[in-house]
Amino acid sequence: MIDVLSGEALELLAPAAVGAVATLNEDGSPHLSSAWIGLEDGEIVIGTLDDQRKLRNLRRDPRIALMVQSNRINAWGLREYLVVDGTARITEGGAAELLQRLALTYIGPDAVFPAMPEPPPGFVTRIRVERISGVGAWRR
Amino acid sequence: MIDVLSGEALELLAPAAVGAVATLNEDGSPHLSSAWIGLEDGEIVIGTLDDQRKLRNLRRDPRIALMVQSNRINAWGLREYLVVDGTARITEGGAAELLQRLALTYIGPDAVFPAMPEPPPGFVTRIRVERISGVGAWRR
Repeated sequence: MIDVLSGEALELLAPAAVGAVATLNEDGSPHLSSAWIGLEDGEIVIGTLDDQRKLRNLRRDPRIALMVQSNRINAWGLREYLVVDGTARITEGGAAELLQRLALTYIGPDAVFPAMPEPPPGFVTRIRVERISGVGAWRR
Repeated sequence: MIDVLSGEALELLAPAAVGAVATLNEDGSPHLSSAWIGLEDGEIVIGTLDDQRKLRNLRRDPRIALMVQSNRINAWGLREYLVVDGTARITEGGAAELLQRLALTYIGPDAVFPAMPEPPPGFVTRIRVERISGVGAWRR
């Protein structure tokens, strides 16, 4: 597995950059949605409280691509970005805990998320990284 | 056609937010790359100097999805975003002129882009908008 947990790629995944997540609809067309991105046990993790379209898509076809844009602009004036191609599996439960952890980065150190008394268990999507591409000084 | 040129959706497409562009690889897997986004004659336009993977993908299958993230955070603490699903057609030439025009927004009012004496004619990808989704106050 490609090590996304070390090197400059981490700088792109770690801060509060919201990911763009591409999956495949039933008719094969591309589906895009956004998601907070976490790292756990060498995989990328996404938490969702509801059984969203992207989860239904991934159960049918686990192929996923994910983009995170950097704050860095390169010498050509272009914003650097990282794309991960991978395979996703969906596990039940744990979404609220993951989202609360990510909210500390994405919203702020005092964030409470989701702000509801008894959030549903939700789903955690775990992405095995198979390829990294994009534009950036981190590129190998 | 959905009118992306009016209303609050324009606020998302007009500023210098780099788009995430999803197309379909030959094996049907999702492909993501980034692009500056312009509007022209009621369509979304993307300029590329080189015959990139996304262009080769779109010639085979014109289905495309495109995400632009907003600077606005909603009441839940989530970054608003807009997704456009559409169909793309690729025309030859005009990329350098389009990129120069977009560079004034994406880089700055004095930008010269591409910074090369004789840029190749390149390609302009024109996207007919078929559906708008995402999370935002602009959503109808």
